[in-house]
Amino acid sequence: MDYIDRHGTAHGFPAADAEAQVRADDRGHVFHSWSAQALIDPMPVAAGEGSTFWDFRGNAYLDFSSQLVNLNLGHQHPDLVSAIQQQAGRLSTIQPSLANDVRGELARRIADVSPEGLEKVFFTNGGAEANEYAVRMARQVTGRRKVLSMYRSYHGSTSTAISLTGDPRRWANEGGDGSAVRFFGPYLYRSAFHATTQEEEGARALQHLEQTILLEGPATIAAIIIETVVGTNGVLVPPPGYLQGVRELCDRHGILYIADEVMVGFGRIGEWFAIDAFGARPDLITFAKGVNSGYVPLGGVVISERVASHFDRVAFPGGLTYSGHPLACAAGVATFEVFERDGILDRVRDLGARVVEPTLRGWLETHPSVGEVRGRGLFWAVELVRDRETREPLVPFNASGPDAAPMTAFAAAAKQGGVWPFTHFNRMHIAPPLVISEEELVRGLSVLDEALTVADGYAQG
Amino acid sequence: MDYIDRHGTAHGFPAADAEAQVRADDRGHVFHSWSAQALIDPMPVAAGEGSTFWDFRGNAYLDFSSQLVNLNLGHQHPDLVSAIQQQAGRLSTIQPSLANDVRGELARRIADVSPEGLEKVFFTNGGAEANEYAVRMARQVTGRRKVLSMYRSYHGSTSTAISLTGDPRRWANEGGDGSAVRFFGPYLYRSAFHATTQEEEGARALQHLEQTILLEGPATIAAIIIETVVGTNGVLVPPPGYLQGVRELCDRHGILYIADEVMVGFGRIGEWFAIDAFGARPDLITFAKGVNSGYVPLGGVVISERVASHFDRVAFPGGLTYSGHPLACAAGVATFEVFERDGILDRVRDLGARVVEPTLRGWLETHPSVGEVRGRGLFWAVELVRDRETREPLVPFNASGPDAAPMTAFAAAAKQGGVWPFTHFNRMHIAPPLVISEEELVRGLSVLDEALTVADGYAQG
Ligand SMILES: Cc1ncc(COP(=O)(O)O)c(C=O)c1O
Ligand SMILES: Cc1ncc(COP(=O)(O)O)c(C=O)c1O
Repeated sequence: MDYIDRHGTAHGFPAADAEAQVRADDRGHVFHSWSAQALIDPMPVAAGEGSTFWDFRGNAYLDFSSQLVNLNLGHQHPDLVSAIQQQAGRLSTIQPSLANDVRGELARRIADVSPEGLEKVFFTNGGAEANEYAVRMARQVTGRRKVLSMYRSYHGSTSTAISLTGDPRRWANEGGDGSAVRFFGPYLYRSAFHATTQEEEGARALQHLEQTILLEGPATIAAIIIETVVGTNGVLVPPPGYLQGVRELCDRHGILYIADEVMVGFGRIGEWFAIDAFGARPDLITFAKGVNSGYVPLGGVVISERVASHFDRVAFPGGLTYSGHPLACAAGVATFEVFERDGILDRVRDLGARVVEPTLRGWLETHPSVGEVRGRGLFWAVELVRDRETREPLVPFNASGPDAAPMTAFAAAAKQGGVWPFTHFNRMHIAPPLVISEEELVRGLSVLDEALTVADGYAQG
Repeated sequence: MDYIDRHGTAHGFPAADAEAQVRADDRGHVFHSWSAQALIDPMPVAAGEGSTFWDFRGNAYLDFSSQLVNLNLGHQHPDLVSAIQQQAGRLSTIQPSLANDVRGELARRIADVSPEGLEKVFFTNGGAEANEYAVRMARQVTGRRKVLSMYRSYHGSTSTAISLTGDPRRWANEGGDGSAVRFFGPYLYRSAFHATTQEEEGARALQHLEQTILLEGPATIAAIIIETVVGTNGVLVPPPGYLQGVRELCDRHGILYIADEVMVGFGRIGEWFAIDAFGARPDLITFAKGVNSGYVPLGGVVISERVASHFDRVAFPGGLTYSGHPLACAAGVATFEVFERDGILDRVRDLGARVVEPTLRGWLETHPSVGEVRGRGLFWAVELVRDRETREPLVPFNASGPDAAPMTAFAAAAKQGGVWPFTHFNRMHIAPPLVISEEELVRGLSVLDEALTVADGYAQG
């Protein structure tokens, strides 16, 4: 692997001059998300391929984070690359009010794999915007404003999306959308409901939601938005029956159910939409990331007939210049072709059940720092604790700086071993590209296994 | 010109089968921006090149709208296409927390053409998000919440952006961001201040803004956001001194000045940033569209040192998966190369002053429906009226359906003549790609000249 610069010149590794230029431009001019700008030192990336990316020194990293759980088809998938190249040559873009071949084809294909009755797609640029517009549709259709969302959730960072978010990223952004209300979702390992089984956790979480609805006033609530499997905040797989229960509560009170599948849609847990595994039908599904592995910014909302038909004769009050962007949609159509041809959903289910799950369950035996493992498909969380009895997290909630040292040390050990991990609070998540080979998956897991000994050093023996 | 489908097959025009498929997919599955879905019939577009695009019947349209004033370098510019194709082959994307060559290069180039003291760039996916984040920065830095914006403005459609918007698109979205306050900007032709000269209009508009600030409470106001030249709402060029006056008011009260250059940045009026023509230095500039002609979704915020340094040691509370998207940034870098090599800014100024302005001024003599023409570079408005004395608009404010018939008839005549016009309320805007040839520009203007006779039919003789 070489670093090929923008002019097509190849530089062997290490490419120190090129790296210095990238660092200088970055530190001089790029303002980074969610960061104190003087306290970060972003690593320059030189190249990517499949499940691996390289820095400018030639170090290879097995990508167990898929770049924010985005690159479901991995780095530089040849079919996506060539679809983009062809579409760029055909028609890069056209405004939203006109009709376009790939825009329509992608919308049709998404509708085809969506639950029955969801037939239309509104395209956005990313996940936050998808949630903004889903909420807007729900408010318009119901004539109500309030939206319920979970603690321990992330829905994006624009004004309404961050207000719905139930994690600390909201804290500095309070006061945005005043009609967001949080409730507790099921999370057996740290149950808010004193439950001891998944069934109990699911049932009590539904009772809690029902009480919240009653006390907030059912007639004031436009929508409930839920990550089908909670992503960044813990790979929280809902207990059997929970999402069906949510659907019933919504039906009873005329509330719309929005499934946020920005992170888990398009194969992450081995389903087109994760909701397929849980037997509930949302009114709106939001997506981004996996739809085209983020090769071109794209997100959207899949819309049920009930919601869509409201806007048959009433104008939908929203829009954006790049809605249904042809270049982005072409990469989406190619994604469908690859998924179908290569049986991606099957391989995700297979690798998850046959390789990841048993390995992680094994860690429960061998690593005192591993408190729980949970997940599905190629999406797993390993909950790291100081003490398996008390379940005290390895680092405090929302820790940073020195408080987060045990997690930082763990992550450094993983990188040292050649694996780029996804860590959040006291958890490591397993989220490699869905095209990862079995050999790479096994190798990456064994690096993480080794790195866990660092975490073990902070845990009760 | 042919229609080349996604598989590379060429179809001569008319391409009826292909068109039928595009229509079926679109009507079945695509949910369109700002529309009553059953009342629209989006025209399928088959191809584009330079200033022209084609439908599936082989009709060519000279694009005088640049697809929502987006494609500054026109359709399928070969340099942008090849930059995208190359970048797709090198590295389509990488997460925001890492450093990337083209991301850094584009940020540096944008900083280079920005007013002094604006050195950092936060990248977003589009214009609405750019404004969301600029406002967030202003609120964080000042510790205040209120934001002032103009009536007759558009700032995008996500929750805070639409709340700041001062046009009817906000009406169905009230109640989003409760801290948005509107004021009147300068607009001599329909003065809110009973002014009769540009100087008077500018001075009175500043007095009005000053009063608004005092009455709202200076210490409650985080920012004032202004489109440097108001775009969709009328190509309103600020009177001399107005924006400098805004800057002084901001300085006096510790308020940040955000220049929204989503539509007018990157050459539309013959400047990198339109603000260069008006001698005021904003604290934050937002951009999108022209930065890469929208070939890949991209927007962003250029940040002054004062604002950026606030976040040196305090984390900026915002972010998005696709921030600084390499594919989008590569198209941005290519845009700079084309602008420089081809002297785009000079040609915009030249064509505007030498071809557009005299032609439009001529219409004041020949068309009773033309009440005023105004603009700069390749960005002009023609205000259509029933009566030049009373200035009664050709159609009522925010007209639709039968009320808008005179404008609909005018637009149909332009399309019939082979020009795709930009119309809004009672105005036609002239906003062709900046690469339009002089011959095309002259030809397009003469089609519009002809079409204006339709508008004349509704006006007093
Ligand atoms: C569940 C979920 N929703 C929404 C978003 C926001 O998406 P974006 O970053 O594209 O705005 C994310 C991003 O990680 C997400 O995980
Ligand atoms: C001045 C201005 N600001 C913001 C926007 C919103 O940009 P986007 O449609 O990319 O969200 C627009 C779009 O036309 C605009 O003209």
